[in-house]
Amino acid sequence: MRRIGMLTSGGDCQALNATMRGVAKSLYNMYDDVEIIGFEDGYKGLIYANYKIMQPSDFSGILTEGGTILGTSRQPFKQMRVPDENGLDKVESMKHTYRKLKLNCLVVLGGNGSQKTANMLSEEGLNVVSLPKTIDNDLWGTEMTFGFQSAVNIATNAIDCIHTTAASHRRVFIVEVMGHKVGWLTLHAGMAGGADIILLPEIPYDINVVCEAITRRSKAGKHFSILAVAEGAISKEEAAMTKKQLKEKKKNGPVYPSVAYEIGARITEITGSEVRVTVPGHTQRGGSPCAYDRVISTRLGAEAARLIAEEQYGYMVAFRGNDIVQVPLKEVAGKLKTVDPGCAMIQEAKMVGICFGDE
Amino acid sequence: MRRIGMLTSGGDCQALNATMRGVAKSLYNMYDDVEIIGFEDGYKGLIYANYKIMQPSDFSGILTEGGTILGTSRQPFKQMRVPDENGLDKVESMKHTYRKLKLNCLVVLGGNGSQKTANMLSEEGLNVVSLPKTIDNDLWGTEMTFGFQSAVNIATNAIDCIHTTAASHRRVFIVEVMGHKVGWLTLHAGMAGGADIILLPEIPYDINVVCEAITRRSKAGKHFSILAVAEGAISKEEAAMTKKQLKEKKKNGPVYPSVAYEIGARITEITGSEVRVTVPGHTQRGGSPCAYDRVISTRLGAEAARLIAEEQYGYMVAFRGNDIVQVPLKEVAGKLKTVDPGCAMIQEAKMVGICFGDE
Amino acid sequence: MRRIGMLTSGGDCQALNATMRGVAKSLYNMYDDVEIIGFEDGYKGLIYANYKIMQPSDFSGILTEGGTILGTSRQPFKQMRVPDENGLDKVESMKHTYRKLKLNCLVVLGGNGSQKTANMLSEEGLNVVSLPKTIDNDLWGTEMTFGFQSAVNIATNAIDCIHTTAASHRRVFIVEVMGHKVGWLTLHAGMAGGADIILLPEIPYDINVVCEAITRRSKAGKHFSILAVAEGAISKEEAAMTKKQLKEKKKNGPVYPSVAYEIGARITEITGSEVRVTVPGHTQRGGSPCAYDRVISTRLGAEAARLIAEEQYGYMVAFRGNDIVQVPLKEVAGKLKTVDPGCAMIQEAKMVGICFGDE
Amino acid sequence: MRRIGMLTSGGDCQALNATMRGVAKSLYNMYDDVEIIGFEDGYKGLIYANYKIMQPSDFSGILTEGGTILGTSRQPFKQMRVPDENGLDKVESMKHTYRKLKLNCLVVLGGNGSQKTANMLSEEGLNVVSLPKTIDNDLWGTEMTFGFQSAVNIATNAIDCIHTTAASHRRVFIVEVMGHKVGWLTLHAGMAGGADIILLPEIPYDINVVCEAITRRSKAGKHFSILAVAEGAISKEEAAMTKKQLKEKKKNGPVYPSVAYEIGARITEITGSEVRVTVPGHTQRGGSPCAYDRVISTRLGAEAARLIAEEQYGYMVAFRGNDIVQVPLKEVAGKLKTVDPGCAMIQEAKMVGICFGDE
Repeated sequence: MRRIGMLTSGGDCQALNATMRGVAKSLYNMYDDVEIIGFEDGYKGLIYANYKIMQPSDFSGILTEGGTILGTSRQPFKQMRVPDENGLDKVESMKHTYRKLKLNCLVVLGGNGSQKTANMLSEEGLNVVSLPKTIDNDLWGTEMTFGFQSAVNIATNAIDCIHTTAASHRRVFIVEVMGHKVGWLTLHAGMAGGADIILLPEIPYDINVVCEAITRRSKAGKHFSILAVAEGAISKEEAAMTKKQLKEKKKNGPVYPSVAYEIGARITEITGSEVRVTVPGHTQRGGSPCAYDRVISTRLGAEAARLIAEEQYGYMVAFRGNDIVQVPLKEVAGKLKTVDPGCAMIQEAKMVGICFGDE
Repeated sequence: MRRIGMLTSGGDCQALNATMRGVAKSLYNMYDDVEIIGFEDGYKGLIYANYKIMQPSDFSGILTEGGTILGTSRQPFKQMRVPDENGLDKVESMKHTYRKLKLNCLVVLGGNGSQKTANMLSEEGLNVVSLPKTIDNDLWGTEMTFGFQSAVNIATNAIDCIHTTAASHRRVFIVEVMGHKVGWLTLHAGMAGGADIILLPEIPYDINVVCEAITRRSKAGKHFSILAVAEGAISKEEAAMTKKQLKEKKKNGPVYPSVAYEIGARITEITGSEVRVTVPGHTQRGGSPCAYDRVISTRLGAEAARLIAEEQYGYMVAFRGNDIVQVPLKEVAGKLKTVDPGCAMIQEAKMVGICFGDE
Repeated sequence: MRRIGMLTSGGDCQALNATMRGVAKSLYNMYDDVEIIGFEDGYKGLIYANYKIMQPSDFSGILTEGGTILGTSRQPFKQMRVPDENGLDKVESMKHTYRKLKLNCLVVLGGNGSQKTANMLSEEGLNVVSLPKTIDNDLWGTEMTFGFQSAVNIATNAIDCIHTTAASHRRVFIVEVMGHKVGWLTLHAGMAGGADIILLPEIPYDINVVCEAITRRSKAGKHFSILAVAEGAISKEEAAMTKKQLKEKKKNGPVYPSVAYEIGARITEITGSEVRVTVPGHTQRGGSPCAYDRVISTRLGAEAARLIAEEQYGYMVAFRGNDIVQVPLKEVAGKLKTVDPGCAMIQEAKMVGICFGDE
Repeated sequence: MRRIGMLTSGGDCQALNATMRGVAKSLYNMYDDVEIIGFEDGYKGLIYANYKIMQPSDFSGILTEGGTILGTSRQPFKQMRVPDENGLDKVESMKHTYRKLKLNCLVVLGGNGSQKTANMLSEEGLNVVSLPKTIDNDLWGTEMTFGFQSAVNIATNAIDCIHTTAASHRRVFIVEVMGHKVGWLTLHAGMAGGADIILLPEIPYDINVVCEAITRRSKAGKHFSILAVAEGAISKEEAAMTKKQLKEKKKNGPVYPSVAYEIGARITEITGSEVRVTVPGHTQRGGSPCAYDRVISTRLGAEAARLIAEEQYGYMVAFRGNDIVQVPLKEVAGKLKTVDPGCAMIQEAKMVGICFGDE
C-alpha cells in the first residue's frame, strides 16, 4: 500500500484541481493499492492532522473547476519555526503527521513561500514532490506556472471591455492587475489587451513620463489612454525612499485603497483628465482554468506521479520549452523570477509603442 | 431623398452599433434614396453641426462591436437651456442644424436624460424617434433596454470568478456593480451570480443586518459571503440625512473612492472579517453585446425605421412581452423605472435566501 | 412533514440545476420539516421508484452548473400508457410511487412531452407543479423557457466565429442549429449572429431563392454568405410531399447525416460555391447557464415553491412580460409555440435584409 | 524611404491581424519614412500586383480582431511553378512585383506551404522574413505558432459544453477537431477538455480498442464517453492500405461528410451505443485571438521588425522556451512537426487514462 499526502497552499488559483486530478489519476492508474490523503487548508491540515482519505471519484469532474477541493491557507514560511499559540512546533507537527500516517510522499501545490516550506520539509527528511502554482508566474526554475495564463485571460478581458467604452468617451482608464512584487501578469495582460501604458513593480515610473505619454496620444487624436497597473507599481520617488520614509508618506498623505487610485489622482492633477479605475481583484484567481492551464496541469500532475513511482524526491516539477522537467527544490526555494527591465519582452513591448513610465 | 439624422447620447453601452445597424439596414432596404447623417459625440454634434454622411458600408460588420461608431457625450438636460460659453443657445442651434440639413427625422439612442431632450426637441417641432439605451434598464415605458443584459453578463461573470476563489479562502467579498440611482443591474447580476447579500439604492441597508447575515452564514459552516453592491447603495442612516448632513459626513469621515470600500471597512470593523473588493467599473459598459441585446437591438432598430416610414414621430420604440411597441416620448420623459422594494422579483430573491440588508 | 418529489425530464438543458435550486432553497427557507425526494433519470425514476432523499447541501453550488444532478431520460408521452417489457403499467406505477412515498406534490421540469405527462398525472389526481424547460422555447403559455437564451448564446457564438473566418475566405458557411420542429433558436441565433440567410422548419425554403440571395451578395462584393439552418429546415418540395414520398426520397437519394449537409450539396451544385458546414450539435445544450437563464430559473423556482405552499396544483409556472405567472397544465399540454411566418420578428428580420428562402 | 511588403497566406487563423500590427507598429516607431504595402489575398496579390498602401491607422484597433485585413488565399506551393491560365509564370510575376514596387523586404505570415514559397522567394533573391501562422502548430522550428492556442480554446470549449450534457444522458459523443495530417490541436483540446478517447492522424486506431474503452467505462458506471477525433484520424486498416485501396474503399462504402460520422457509425454498430457528433469546423479558425496568441503575435511581430531593421533576411521568426528566435527559412521549408506517438505528452496523456485507440 502506497500512501501519498497532498495539499494546496497559499493564494488559490485556477488549475489546482486540474493538477491534483493529474497526479491522482496517474497514481490510481499505476497502482491498485494507492491511497491519497488530502490535507485541508494547506500546511495547516498537515500541522493539525486535518485530512480526508480521498476516493478516485473525488478527482472526477474537477478538471474544469476553479478553486481547490482541499481548501488552502497562507502559512508564511517565516512563521513555520515560530511555535503557535499553544506552543506547538509546527515543523515537528508536520513531520509527526507525515510519519503517523506512514506517508510515502507529500505532494505540495504551492507558490514561492510554499516551495520554501516544501524544501525545508525535504531537508528535514520527508519525501516531497512539489508543483508550481501561482497566477504570478514568479517561480524560479519553471517557464510557466499553472494559473498564470488563466489570470492573464481575465485581466486581458477587463482591458478589452474597457477598450470599447474608452474609445467612445474621452478619458483615462486604469486597470489594476494583481502582482505586488512581480509584474508578469500585468505585462502579459497589458500587451494582450493593447494597453498604452504598463506600470510594473520592477520598473519604477516617473508620473510625468506617464502623463506625457497620455498627452502625446491626445495630441495625436487618440482621446483615451489605457493603463495596466500592477498592484505593486512604484514611482521613482518611492523606489528611492527608505521603508521609514514610505511609512511616513502613507501616514501623512491621503489614503487610497490601492495604487491605481493614487496614480489616477496624480494623473487628474497633472493632466486634468477624467480617470476611471477598474479593479478586477480576486476575479483574477477565479473561474474555470483556461485550456492552456489544464494541459500543463495535467502534464505536470502526470510527471509528479512518475517521480513518485520512481522514488525521486526533493523536486519541483517544472515546465520548460514545452517539456516537463524536474528541478531540485533547494534550487527553487527562496528565489523569485522577476521581470528584468532589460529583457527581450520589455524591449518588444517598447518597440510596439508601450510606455513603461521609465523614459 | 429622405434625410435621417442619428446620434448616440450619454454613457455608452454595448449594443449602440447593433441598434444603429438595425435602423440603417432597414432604411437602406426600404428606400433607394435615403441618406443617413451621423452626428458626432451625441447632442454636441447636433448643436455644433459636427456630422458625417454615412455610407451603407459604415453599418456593415458592427453588429458585434461594442462602443459607438458615432461617439457619445453627456449633455445634461438641465443645461440644454443654458447658453454655452460663447452665448450660443443650444436648443436653437440643434433646431437650426436639423433644418439646415433638411432632416426628415432625428433618431436618438439614449438613456433617461437623452430621452428628456428628445422629447423637448419633439415638442419644439422636430420629428424624433428614440431608442432605449442604457445598462441600467431604468427607462420608463420599456421592459428592457439594450445594453442591460450585456452588462448583467459582465457583472455576473465577476461574481462567478469570485465564487471559486471565495470558496477556497475564508473572506467576505464585495463586487461593486454600476447603478447610482437604480438597482436593476445589481439585482439581476446578484441573483445570477448567487450573491448572498444584495444592496440596492432603492432599499436602504442596516449594516448590522448585513453583518448578521454574514455571521449567520459563518455559523452554518459557510466561511465566505459575497455581496453585490450597487454604486448607489445607501445605509438607513444616510437615507434619513438631509443633503447638508450627507455633505458634512463626507467631509469629516474617511474618504473612500466608492461605496464598496466604505461598506467593506464597516464589515471588517464589526465582524473582524477580511474583506476584498472588486470593482468591474466601466468593463460593464464594454465588450461585444450579448446575443439577447443584439436581437432586441435589431428588432428595435427595424421598428424605428418602420415608424419613420410611416411618419409616426414623437415616440420611443420599446420592448414589452417579446413585442416591440411605441411609447409617446412625453410619457417616457422624466420618469425613472426603479426597483420597487415590494416587487415580485425582490420577494422571489428573498425566498431563495438573499439578504437585502433591510430586515 | 412536507414531502416534495422532483424530477427533470426530456433532453437536458442549461438551467435545470439553477431551477431546482430555486425551488429547493425556497422550500427549505419556508419549512423546517420539508423533505425533497429526487427521482433519477426523469419519469423513469418515478415509475421504478429510483430516488434519493435530497439534502440542502445537494442544492448548494449548482446555480452555475449545466446538466442535471438528477439525470434525465426521454419517456415519450405516447408510450406512457403502453406497458413496459415486464407488463408494468407505467402510469399506475408512477401513482403508486407517489402515494407510497406520501408526496404532497410532484415538481416536474420538462419540455413539451413532459408537460403532457405532467398534465396526465395531474388529471389522475396527483398534485403537480411544472416548470418550462427547453432550449427550443416552444412551450405554449410562456414567453420564455429556461435553457433557451443559453442555447442562443452558444449557437450565436458559433456564427460569430465563422464570421471572422468567412470574411477572409470566399465561401458559403452553414451553421446547423438545433430545432427539429420549431425555429426560435435558429431565428434568434441567426439574428444575433448576423446570418444572411435563415432557414426554419416553419418556413419552407426554395433552394433557388437561397442561391439567388447568395449570388446577389456576391455581386454586391460580399464574397461570403452565412446560413443559420435549423435541423428541421424543409424545402418547399419536401413540405408538399406525403410521408411516404419523403421516405422514398430518403431511401433513393444520397444519405446525409443532417440537413445542413444536404443543403450545402445543393448550393454547391447550383452556385458552384465551396460550402463549409458547422454542426455545434449538443454543445447547444451544455455549458453553464447564462445570467438571463439563471435569473428566470431562480424566479420560476421560487414561484413554484410559493404555489406548493399555497397548495395550488395543476399549474406550469411561466414567464410573461418580466412577470412570473401560473398557467393551468391542461392549457399547456399538447400545444406547441411555433414561429408564425407572419409574426413581427420575422418581418423585422426581413426588414434588415435577412432571407428566409421563401420569396 | 523603406518599403515593406506584407501578405497573409493559406487558411486564416486568429492572430494574423495582431501579428501584422506588431510588425507595423514597430516599423512605424523605428522609421519616419517607412511605407507598408499590403498584398491582397495572399501570394495572389503579389503575383497580380493587387495591393494597397497601408496607413498607420489601418493597424489600429486590430489586435483583437479575427481574420485578416489583407484577405488570404491558398496558393499551393506545387503550383507556383505551373503557369496560370494565361500562361503567366507566377514566380517571375512575384519577383517582378517585388522589384517594381522597390520593396526592401517581404513579410510573409503563413503555414507550411506558405513557408516553402517564402523560402523559394528567398532563394530567388528576394529579402524575406516570415512568421509562423497556423492553428495546427505543425511548423518545424518553432515551439508554438500563433492561432494554435485560440483554436485549442474553441475546440476545448466545445468538449466542455458536451461534458455537461453527456453526463445527463447515456451516450457516446464525438467532437471532430481540425487537423488533417497533424494532431496537436486534437491532442491539446482533448486533454484540456477531459476527453476519454483521442484519435490522431499520427496514431492509427483499432476500432475494437476504442469500443473496449467505451465499454470499460460503461461497466465502471460512467455511462458516457467523449471522443476528440482529428479530421485526419485513421484506422489501422486504412493506414495499411495503398492509395488505390483507400480510393476503392471510399467509392464502395457509404459516404460520410467527415471521419467523425464514419467512426460514429462503427461504434454504434459494435457497441449499440447512441452516438452524437459535433463538428465545430471553421469556428476553430475564428473569433478574437486569445491573450496568449496576442502576446506571442506582438512579440513575433516586433522581432520581425527588428530583423528587417538589421537587414537579416531569409528567416522565420519563431518561439522557443518563452524566447523569440530566428530560424533559417531553408531549415523550416518542407518539414512538418507531427505528434510523435512516443513523445512525453502522449505518455502523460496515457498516464491519466486517455485512450488513443492503439493498445
